Amino acid sequence: MSNYTPLSELGEFGLIKLINEKIELTQASTVKGIGDDAAVIEPKEKQIVVSSDMLLEGVHFDLTFCPLKHLGYKAVAVNVSDIAAMNANPTQITVNIALGARYTVEAVEELYEGIRLACEDYKVDLVGGDTTSSRAGLVISVTAIGEVAKDEAVLRSGAKVNDLICVTGDLGAAYLGLQVLEREKQAFLADPEMQPELESKQYVVGRQLRPQARMDVIHELKELNVKPTAMIDVSDGLASELFHICTQSNVGATIYKDNLPADQQMLETAVEFNLDPFTCILNGGEDYELLFTVPLSDYDKVKNNPDISIIGKITEKSEGINLANKHGQAFPLQAQGWKHF
Amino acid sequence: MSNYTPLSELGEFGLIKLINEKIELTQASTVKGIGDDAAVIEPKEKQIVVSSDMLLEGVHFDLTFCPLKHLGYKAVAVNVSDIAAMNANPTQITVNIALGARYTVEAVEELYEGIRLACEDYKVDLVGGDTTSSRAGLVISVTAIGEVAKDEAVLRSGAKVNDLICVTGDLGAAYLGLQVLEREKQAFLADPEMQPELESKQYVVGRQLRPQARMDVIHELKELNVKPTAMIDVSDGLASELFHICTQSNVGATIYKDNLPADQQMLETAVEFNLDPFTCILNGGEDYELLFTVPLSDYDKVKNNPDISIIGKITEKSEGINLANKHGQAFPLQAQGWKHF
Repeated sequence: MSNYTPLSELGEFGLIKLINEKIELTQASTVKGIGDDAAVIEPKEKQIVVSSDMLLEGVHFDLTFCPLKHLGYKAVAVNVSDIAAMNANPTQITVNIALGARYTVEAVEELYEGIRLACEDYKVDLVGGDTTSSRAGLVISVTAIGEVAKDEAVLRSGAKVNDLICVTGDLGAAYLGLQVLEREKQAFLADPEMQPELESKQYVVGRQLRPQARMDVIHELKELNVKPTAMIDVSDGLASELFHICTQSNVGATIYKDNLPADQQMLETAVEFNLDPFTCILNGGEDYELLFTVPLSDYDKVKNNPDISIIGKITEKSEGINLANKHGQAFPLQAQGWKHF
Repeated sequence: MSNYTPLSELGEFGLIKLINEKIELTQASTVKGIGDDAAVIEPKEKQIVVSSDMLLEGVHFDLTFCPLKHLGYKAVAVNVSDIAAMNANPTQITVNIALGARYTVEAVEELYEGIRLACEDYKVDLVGGDTTSSRAGLVISVTAIGEVAKDEAVLRSGAKVNDLICVTGDLGAAYLGLQVLEREKQAFLADPEMQPELESKQYVVGRQLRPQARMDVIHELKELNVKPTAMIDVSDGLASELFHICTQSNVGATIYKDNLPADQQMLETAVEFNLDPFTCILNGGEDYELLFTVPLSDYDKVKNNPDISIIGKITEKSEGINLANKHGQAFPLQAQGWKHF
């Protein structure tokens, strides 16, 4: 351990200096980044969108199997995902971090390396934040800011009857990745000599540890000239998010079981864990895909897009929210979401 | 305890609903508040400023003596103070909160009542955030957004040689308030029957528990047509903040011991605790007053303002940062700040 530097040796100002040295600002709207009482941003004619999320050790992540670099990346990505879900471009983030004295400078550097990588991938500027100590575990609170042309923001409330319901990527894998990691952790605790068996689970584990915000799809939709009528990111699970859109848009929905996008490794892993794959798809959460609705007239523009699945349609509110099978039978959908308390 | 509702009974969505019901939006720039993936803000021609801070139980506050309502108020006020220090108007905040299952709904309502009161006092809209569980103590992370006309933002870096150094209010009281509260806590732990002796300490205790952001002075300065050349809020202590201004402005400073603003109760309490009052004034922290510099030509505009003390002047960098006594002797100032690690 002699190569590691305790945080206490560096102090708060030293830590801030260390973090700042690696930051590059790239957004035209960033007037002033870290180093003053507040950052200064000039959005010009645009609207800005703001979203904020907090991740706590022991609640949202487990450092036994979550590398700090991935954690830093994920903390940024999940906030960028909220900006994407507004049809906006992420531009700046602030990051507040609380960590215990047991952390080394090297550990904090690893965490910020992940944050930096995500900033690079999503082209956002880290413009502020706060680093403090924690008596309990690590806490990361990120606020993401994005910009969007006036009238281009997409809320959850705009879905109309007959709109198509679309979702990006595939669902349920992040939840199964977590099951795999929990299993390997238990095996490791029982026998610290054991080697984790993750090779055949790379996809699902990757979905859990390093989710991506689907900014690529936001850009694609713009190119296709498709503006969703409603949009939300899938953080709590497809069913829960669909309920949000339907409630706020005052509509019903029918989604088709056979159209739900699933990855082969996710399906195999669900079977291995004796879990119903459809439950994982509908209620798994943490996939950070986008659920959105588009007018029926946009069908031709989205139907062949490999990143997008058309999974159902918006109906009258009185019809409720249903899951239909290939025999045409429809059953009311249950939204489970995550219970934090 | 039968009148209290455990959080688990309400659930996350119930809690969010409860919080949202009491929120009023008043800012013209708030297009969409809580209830979507992100808030939408339209700053028009203005620049926006963004600041973020995190408060942790056991590190930044002690619920033994800090009422939840005051804590909620303080979490907002300290962030508004950062916006004030940019010469900006606070407009929106997002609040992320993590709390343990042992919290009751009533406790959370009390916390949000404090947040709501501060939003009312500072005219800011609560537009978003995240409520989650914590395995350790309470964590509050606030991001404040403000707006400022282009070229009106005041950074730390603009102080010029011969500028006057000014500070608002008085200093050191918040630190002594903390000492009083810690003493009463120890007395209470030793004898739970004891009644706290706080009546003669109301001012210093109030400064600790419920600090105010000096937006009033920001408005006053605008009315006086005074634009500070540099500004910072006093969260870590006067000396530390003066070092920030001097370092970033590339100048030196001399402040005069006799000009430092002190409250009588603060002075008496310092003596009672065997503390040097000047150390409390210079390094006490958490006063959330504003330290700023103005051109010498503004002397007449600020000299008789009861909210403002002129405490020194900016000098050449080579002269260093000094504290002078009434005999004209100057000693190099030490910046201590707070060591979090």
